[in-house]
Amino acid sequence: MEKMWALAPAFVEGIPQGKALGIKFVSVDVGKATFALPYSTKIIGDPATRVIHGGAITTLLDQVSGLAATAAIVSEANDINIANVATLDLSLDYMRPATPGETVIGTATCYKTTHHIAFVRAIAHDGDINDPVAMCQATFMITRHKPSNPEAVS
Amino acid sequence: MEKMWALAPAFVEGIPQGKALGIKFVSVDVGKATFALPYSTKIIGDPATRVIHGGAITTLLDQVSGLAATAAIVSEANDINIANVATLDLSLDYMRPATPGETVIGTATCYKTTHHIAFVRAIAHDGDINDPVAMCQATFMITRHKPSNPEAVS
Amino acid sequence: MEKMWALAPAFVEGIPQGKALGIKFVSVDVGKATFALPYSTKIIGDPATRVIHGGAITTLLDQVSGLAATAAIVSEANDINIANVATLDLSLDYMRPATPGETVIGTATCYKTTHHIAFVRAIAHDGDINDPVAMCQATFMITRHKPSNPEAVS
Amino acid sequence: MEKMWALAPAFVEGIPQGKALGIKFVSVDVGKATFALPYSTKIIGDPATRVIHGGAITTLLDQVSGLAATAAIVSEANDINIANVATLDLSLDYMRPATPGETVIGTATCYKTTHHIAFVRAIAHDGDINDPVAMCQATFMITRHKPSNPEAVS
Repeated sequence: MEKMWALAPAFVEGIPQGKALGIKFVSVDVGKATFALPYSTKIIGDPATRVIHGGAITTLLDQVSGLAATAAIVSEANDINIANVATLDLSLDYMRPATPGETVIGTATCYKTTHHIAFVRAIAHDGDINDPVAMCQATFMITRHKPSNPEAVS
Repeated sequence: MEKMWALAPAFVEGIPQGKALGIKFVSVDVGKATFALPYSTKIIGDPATRVIHGGAITTLLDQVSGLAATAAIVSEANDINIANVATLDLSLDYMRPATPGETVIGTATCYKTTHHIAFVRAIAHDGDINDPVAMCQATFMITRHKPSNPEAVS
Repeated sequence: MEKMWALAPAFVEGIPQGKALGIKFVSVDVGKATFALPYSTKIIGDPATRVIHGGAITTLLDQVSGLAATAAIVSEANDINIANVATLDLSLDYMRPATPGETVIGTATCYKTTHHIAFVRAIAHDGDINDPVAMCQATFMITRHKPSNPEAVS
Repeated sequence: MEKMWALAPAFVEGIPQGKALGIKFVSVDVGKATFALPYSTKIIGDPATRVIHGGAITTLLDQVSGLAATAAIVSEANDINIANVATLDLSLDYMRPATPGETVIGTATCYKTTHHIAFVRAIAHDGDINDPVAMCQATFMITRHKPSNPEAVS
């Protein structure tokens, strides 16, 4: 289980847009993942309001959803090489600007998997999950491999 | 009209994730925008296949759609300060991996504006627009300001 | 509050597709609505499996989401004529076929309203809300009228 | 090829909501389908404006997209029993009310199929396809069967 954390860099610090935005890995669990986007001047989209750029929220939700889907599949077989997931569809609604100065949390749950598809919902908020900044509904195509090494994740 | 090009940096090189991915501005016109994402090793998502990361396509389409919406509103009044647009909804479908080694083109059209909403469609492809990598359907909320300076864009 | 129930027919029995499918009104509250789609042979989509037609789920979620949005706006002013809502964007994901023989429940929550937009999420399930049949994320454009009669809903 | 028309009733007159709304089959071809929704008083959503109910547009686009996806798969094998398609994701944007008195046309194109997924775009308009009423982006899950009878469609 602990080794599932090894997946995270591929979704955050290990990708150029995640690193550039300063997205941080918070946690991963079976079908769940959470990232944080700390407030910083480099991600301000509107100097007048100091609100961060909406595209940073898109990247946050896209990435955290992908990790949740992967974490759902991987945990079934306890093998981080058991499958690849690729985004099939991503639908995002944006409720309001994130509050200047606040860290934005992106948290995703993979609530259903079939043989081919993983279904994920994600929320971005800046402290109160009941007052979201953005919502996300996503599907991922799963390509399952033969078990590579049953000991890979333990 | 030429000064509409002044809008582009706010959607590409001027934002951390655009710069980190190496997205390039290609063109902007009334309700239309095109960006390019050149292939580079730093945006590879899967070392085995050398396919670029899907999240790079998301950023490309998100950004180019926002510029197309802005370019539609701005051109109505010939004033780059006439309005702000904020993403309200973004729906992306991903057809296939981009071809390794190829530049991905993201091109967006704002085909309808109302007083409050701009409607955009965008396509990402790697050479043949009829064989898309991803498709995007988006709406933007428009906040209209009083004309600041009618000569601002000409 | 009780008079908010007067809104329901416009979203269910009062529309041809709702009536034809046999969708039933269950409840409406501030920003919330629930409908039921009883199983019947006339809505079977596949005679071999006796699974109901996916389009019936689409209609169920579209309608119940619209009522939840309306119920959120109306309850703010306690006036059923205070505003109209029109669907702006609707994104639906379908997890699995509904179980033959089971009633499908569609339940929607309007979790955020701004001056112009209502944001809704809805779920269709057949008994266990944690094992959904389909999920929905929607936005509605609000057209606000002058208060017509403050006593209209009480 | 002509026998592909046999598919149409399952998406229009053969389903309760299609029949109730009065949706008419217009044409089907390889990966393409068109339906019409004639104006009638029974589908008016707002008596004051005589605009038809938005949910009728949802049903129109949902159904015509499903037929286009099916027509793409079926035509590959020239066999109407070769596969089933089930909606996986449906994203609809609504630009404007349909014009009272006008027939609404729903036209869909399946522009890409993979082994498991069909990708469709659809437009609803009331005469001018460049002034759409609504737009749709959809994915369908394909379940492929063994060829049942290669002569079934000819």
